[in-house]
Amino acid sequence: MRTGRLEAFSDGVFAIAITLLVLDLKVPLDRSHDLGTALGSEWPQFAAYLVSFFVIGVIWINHHTVLDAIAKADKTLLVLNLALLLTVVTIPFTTSLFAEYLRDDGAAKIAAAIYSGVMLLHGILWSIFWAYAANHPDLLEPDVDRVKAKASVRTFALGVPVYSVAVLLSFVNAYVVLAVHLVLAIVYLRGRIDLGDPVEVSATGGRE
Amino acid sequence: MRTGRLEAFSDGVFAIAITLLVLDLKVPLDRSHDLGTALGSEWPQFAAYLVSFFVIGVIWINHHTVLDAIAKADKTLLVLNLALLLTVVTIPFTTSLFAEYLRDDGAAKIAAAIYSGVMLLHGILWSIFWAYAANHPDLLEPDVDRVKAKASVRTFALGVPVYSVAVLLSFVNAYVVLAVHLVLAIVYLRGRIDLGDPVEVSATGGRE
Amino acid sequence: MRTGRLEAFSDGVFAIAITLLVLDLKVPLDRSHDLGTALGSEWPQFAAYLVSFFVIGVIWINHHTVLDAIAKADKTLLVLNLALLLTVVTIPFTTSLFAEYLRDDGAAKIAAAIYSGVMLLHGILWSIFWAYAANHPDLLEPDVDRVKAKASVRTFALGVPVYSVAVLLSFVNAYVVLAVHLVLAIVYLRGRIDLGDPVEVSATGGRE
Amino acid sequence: MRTGRLEAFSDGVFAIAITLLVLDLKVPLDRSHDLGTALGSEWPQFAAYLVSFFVIGVIWINHHTVLDAIAKADKTLLVLNLALLLTVVTIPFTTSLFAEYLRDDGAAKIAAAIYSGVMLLHGILWSIFWAYAANHPDLLEPDVDRVKAKASVRTFALGVPVYSVAVLLSFVNAYVVLAVHLVLAIVYLRGRIDLGDPVEVSATGGRE
Repeated sequence: MRTGRLEAFSDGVFAIAITLLVLDLKVPLDRSHDLGTALGSEWPQFAAYLVSFFVIGVIWINHHTVLDAIAKADKTLLVLNLALLLTVVTIPFTTSLFAEYLRDDGAAKIAAAIYSGVMLLHGILWSIFWAYAANHPDLLEPDVDRVKAKASVRTFALGVPVYSVAVLLSFVNAYVVLAVHLVLAIVYLRGRIDLGDPVEVSATGGRE
Repeated sequence: MRTGRLEAFSDGVFAIAITLLVLDLKVPLDRSHDLGTALGSEWPQFAAYLVSFFVIGVIWINHHTVLDAIAKADKTLLVLNLALLLTVVTIPFTTSLFAEYLRDDGAAKIAAAIYSGVMLLHGILWSIFWAYAANHPDLLEPDVDRVKAKASVRTFALGVPVYSVAVLLSFVNAYVVLAVHLVLAIVYLRGRIDLGDPVEVSATGGRE
Repeated sequence: MRTGRLEAFSDGVFAIAITLLVLDLKVPLDRSHDLGTALGSEWPQFAAYLVSFFVIGVIWINHHTVLDAIAKADKTLLVLNLALLLTVVTIPFTTSLFAEYLRDDGAAKIAAAIYSGVMLLHGILWSIFWAYAANHPDLLEPDVDRVKAKASVRTFALGVPVYSVAVLLSFVNAYVVLAVHLVLAIVYLRGRIDLGDPVEVSATGGRE
Repeated sequence: MRTGRLEAFSDGVFAIAITLLVLDLKVPLDRSHDLGTALGSEWPQFAAYLVSFFVIGVIWINHHTVLDAIAKADKTLLVLNLALLLTVVTIPFTTSLFAEYLRDDGAAKIAAAIYSGVMLLHGILWSIFWAYAANHPDLLEPDVDRVKAKASVRTFALGVPVYSVAVLLSFVNAYVVLAVHLVLAIVYLRGRIDLGDPVEVSATGGRE
């Protein structure tokens, strides 16, 4: 399968998942408090909305960067991509859970660990996805440097320990974990993987 | 109508249907149990979510494989495709129903039979869809072997008895039926239909 | 604006509107009746779901047929298309309303009239949309017969009296109106507009 | 990244956000009033639905006009576009909030200010987005007049004071603010930015 189709379907899923996040913002229906106060007490929803919007947005950007280096997909890659999308589609749920329980101390830690756990699973799948592609040179675009592609597998694998730390941190402080996911998204946005000369000279970072 | 348009619209529907599955995952609002227990008691939702995500994902992959063999669509094919999409769009509902009643014994059997019934309808429509295309050689891509295409109609029709068994099994054990749908998705993913030489030599299975 | 973009955006809206219909199917949560009975009492939801799915599907097919005859869109056409999409996006709401009140006698007539009213508005906008395009030959594809295009404006306008009758019928019998919308969708699906020679000879009906 | 991908993803988000607006229309379930009265009392929902549908529709049209002038996107532009989309995705929420509280006097002012505030943020981001593109000539299409592009930055910036006035007006009268957003969408629809000769002669306004 040419990756064009795969990207179009994935783009659709990303676009829907990122937009469904807005369903987590609830219009306060209890009129016993004034609207400002009622909305103010929903701040975890707004904070989690912003973080997850940015997280999914960055995953979308990086998904494209990686798929631009892949020429075709076999069934294994399709299934790995489906698994990646599964973790993305789950984010509106884990976001809603995180926001609902952020102020609930004990439960906040569980909610934070679940949010981080899905991101860890995402990191693991991302790592397997790229390792598979890098080890099947026939699937890569001709201008991708095969040696550098294989070398970059280790860079991708860095997501696994990083998100593992986020899972552990969840049992310390849920607020910190929310901030950590924002910071990690910024780091992933700025990250740049060297896949060969035509890429390396790009002024904008990465293969975009 | 060129099938490009048809695929784009179908991709959109697949992407939305697969993403809407996440709406079946409910954030527990009753705080009388701890969050871990509350989420644990939602395991049928998570199990059904995973199975249906994979089921729709595999239908999407196979939809592409088949549409790659079709060059243009007439109105009959458009309507058959709409009917196929109708069964896909219904999956988030049957999934939610299945999950809600999985532990309810009597009701679980009805819910499982409805879930399987929609899949059976999907199998029947899929079979008609391909039989129609295979019998209208002017709709097929030039490189598709017409004789093999017609012969493959019987392979597609296998879905009908298979899903009929799933419907019958529903009245025995709903848990088994859920597992069966996962297994069937794996079987359908690995399935490979021989539509002619350029296809047969493909290393990745099928026309992808 | 080339119509490719317009079609892609419209396709997205159609795909989402048709998929959102599934949200009208409710999993029965009241366990005081057995599941079969509970679902049986939801038959208006299922009937309305099927009719509206088919209605939106046919609008999508015809939207493409018409846009294939249009080469570019100016701002007026963009706004007319937006208005058309507004009526399509409203269908999940009018469907839900229709289903909820189908058995409520008095309210059923109002609900049916609203459903039919949105379709009438759709018919009027569709008519204006095509009249505008047919009267701006610079917007049409080169192979479209300008004289036939103008003549076809009257055919498009037939939707207005037809849907007006559906609105009037609403005050007689809501069940009949639901059936009428299904029949009208079939009529619109089979309809064929003569826009010039390359179209007329098409074996598949219309410009597809 | 070529802007084609960016546009496809953005189109998906626009299409979903505009369609999710329909979820704000609620089927009245309280049968103590007749259906006509019950729906009539929901008029703020319908009014807000129409205004926001038109607002998002016009943003979509203008987004394309602007992206047609941009040849490629670097990471900064991608992030600015994500931020633009964030404000668009938030509109179904602010619309729902606005409609729910439109008749609540004090709360209406807060809801109107939030609706206008998100539009102001949108205006600011839009302005930054275009200023960034206009100041990076390597990102622009070759036929875009660089001098005119820079000059147009001021025209884009007009949205900031305009939406600031809408925020201030919110504390005077919420009904007026709803009407103002409709008027502003019409103004933005009719607006035309001069980006060079091939654009200037366009009969349909703008680069479309």
